[in-house]
Amino acid sequence: MARPATEELRRRNRSALLDRLHRRGPQTRAELTEALGLNRSTIGALASDLSESGHIQETTGRPTGAAGRPSTLVECVPEAATVAAVEVRWKRLRLAVVGLGGTVLRRDEVPIAPGADGAAVAKAAAALLADAEVSDAIAAVPGLVDGGTVAQSSELGWADRDFGADLESATGRVWRVVDVATAAAVGEWSRGDAHGVANLLYLHGGHGLTAGWVVDGRPRRGSSIMLGHIVVNPGGQRCRCGLSGCVEAEMGTFDFSETIDETTIAARLGDTAAREMVRRSGEFLGLALGAVVTATNPDEILFGGWLRELYLSSAAAVRSSLAEATLPQLRARLRLRTAALGAQGPLTGAAEIGFEALMERMRLMWLARQDSNLE
Amino acid sequence: MARPATEELRRRNRSALLDRLHRRGPQTRAELTEALGLNRSTIGALASDLSESGHIQETTGRPTGAAGRPSTLVECVPEAATVAAVEVRWKRLRLAVVGLGGTVLRRDEVPIAPGADGAAVAKAAAALLADAEVSDAIAAVPGLVDGGTVAQSSELGWADRDFGADLESATGRVWRVVDVATAAAVGEWSRGDAHGVANLLYLHGGHGLTAGWVVDGRPRRGSSIMLGHIVVNPGGQRCRCGLSGCVEAEMGTFDFSETIDETTIAARLGDTAAREMVRRSGEFLGLALGAVVTATNPDEILFGGWLRELYLSSAAAVRSSLAEATLPQLRARLRLRTAALGAQGPLTGAAEIGFEALMERMRLMWLARQDSNLE
Repeated sequence: MARPATEELRRRNRSALLDRLHRRGPQTRAELTEALGLNRSTIGALASDLSESGHIQETTGRPTGAAGRPSTLVECVPEAATVAAVEVRWKRLRLAVVGLGGTVLRRDEVPIAPGADGAAVAKAAAALLADAEVSDAIAAVPGLVDGGTVAQSSELGWADRDFGADLESATGRVWRVVDVATAAAVGEWSRGDAHGVANLLYLHGGHGLTAGWVVDGRPRRGSSIMLGHIVVNPGGQRCRCGLSGCVEAEMGTFDFSETIDETTIAARLGDTAAREMVRRSGEFLGLALGAVVTATNPDEILFGGWLRELYLSSAAAVRSSLAEATLPQLRARLRLRTAALGAQGPLTGAAEIGFEALMERMRLMWLARQDSNLE
Repeated sequence: MARPATEELRRRNRSALLDRLHRRGPQTRAELTEALGLNRSTIGALASDLSESGHIQETTGRPTGAAGRPSTLVECVPEAATVAAVEVRWKRLRLAVVGLGGTVLRRDEVPIAPGADGAAVAKAAAALLADAEVSDAIAAVPGLVDGGTVAQSSELGWADRDFGADLESATGRVWRVVDVATAAAVGEWSRGDAHGVANLLYLHGGHGLTAGWVVDGRPRRGSSIMLGHIVVNPGGQRCRCGLSGCVEAEMGTFDFSETIDETTIAARLGDTAAREMVRRSGEFLGLALGAVVTATNPDEILFGGWLRELYLSSAAAVRSSLAEATLPQLRARLRLRTAALGAQGPLTGAAEIGFEALMERMRLMWLARQDSNLE
């Protein structure tokens, strides 16, 4: 018979085991034993607990190694816990229902009317979600988000919109609202190439330029970086935000985002005007990044959205202007790369933000069951 | 007889109680009961555990309230756990030995030769510390710190100096090395007016301009913000760092830091040239802050070191130029204030960084004692 304290430890390690399987995918018992620093019999007991509760299953994988002996893999049961993630963009709404372990169980997309308000978009989200039963729900929205409120979104034309409340009244459940750039940063950090980078900056080129980040190994709560409105040329071009000399205005981003593919292709084919436009945009981007790098000292910067194309076409200009605006000590360890998940980044990250909360709830629930035994 | 699981809970709550007393100072049992959400008898049991282990004591405080009944206060025993904090500056080395609860048990200061290297300063620190027995030791150094290494310090003239190793060989113990601005940020956040602000930016005017910050309620690890080297005027004044147009160079900080008191006094007395100098410096500072605020979205900014005087003399210029370089949505909740702890900020914060680590070690040790019972 397990003594209460053994039971407590077991419940704590159960969370750790499930968390690892969710993040890292199927693993053998031997791998889990090593990774969690527990002994083989403890792993066996935890696996049988989680198997009994329906969270994991053991499958016989393909033969590995020279001996060709099939190895037993422990893996999450996707349906045991699911998260709905929606991404709101200008003219379209996307949904992913993601299961434990990161398996995408469903994807869907519907057009929305340009200029639709929060209530209309929330209704569309409710229709898209239909009667899916999920354990957590997250919405990713482009712009500046504060709690459930979209403080400002030029892409959607919203200001101070309580989209969390819109979603709650349309679907009858609580939603978490995050900004698209933060969601994408978490996506790249949890399931992209930047897995585990302690200080990650993800730059997104969309309707405007925004950035999300992971700081000291934790996704930054609160808000995205309004990268496009770093002033790189005081008194320069008037920006649509009301300020002057914002990097967005200097780059001509508003037009650029529509034509980035054509422009970069033309630049590659040797079109002089296009090359000059790409080079200048890269330079302004590098200047803005200089300020952001000085302020946040990241280990890695990822370029996503249309910034991916721009960076690939103007890396030299970006780097040389970054070098003029950042101390060499801050650049020494800094890596610049393109984002790996592309358009899947925001939904992937939004779902992970949901799972983070869900895992914490499970952990507390398991511990609380223990505590309630003490009365 | 306590069952093991009850014992486990008790050990966990013991850490929480001690942590609260350390951070908030002496409190009555009734206040602790409410703050920790535990019942009165549990608080009594925890207090008697911690009293037995010598960490806390109960004293009869001054009479409070109308009835004038003296209340019993629970408080930390300062000597139960102590941290040594040293602050290295150009020409001087300061020490504080701080006890549990934040009581300063000893302060000391010695001159050091300008240009002294890490080994010499470490020897001076060892002499200053003498035979004090402390549980943790922290050094705060001006500049860019990476682990135990001072990557760059213009104030000390150091580059890539492994000061952690210098201290270890001089004193025979492990030290943590942090930068002065981060230490001061933690000081203001833990024991200054900015107590508990989730996103705090502390700006320090010293030999150069640096900033430290607390993000999402946690002191940022890693490095300070090299605020002085935000480029506000690309291609402008050549800076001593090698870049051009850094805010430090544009403000003329290097000369300014020597004469700030005279200049601000002259400006207040109506000296036109001094007023113009102060106003222009305030404007450049506001521009650099614009980029930092856009990148980090803080709730509060504190001005410390000589920036305190500059801000008091040029608040209007700082604010108006900040307004030209930051979206109104980011400025809406932002408070600008002067730092409360003055020159005590860095040592106060360095000690708190030590206590943070120390509390975590105690918590784990208490839990581990529990776990070892299970074999």
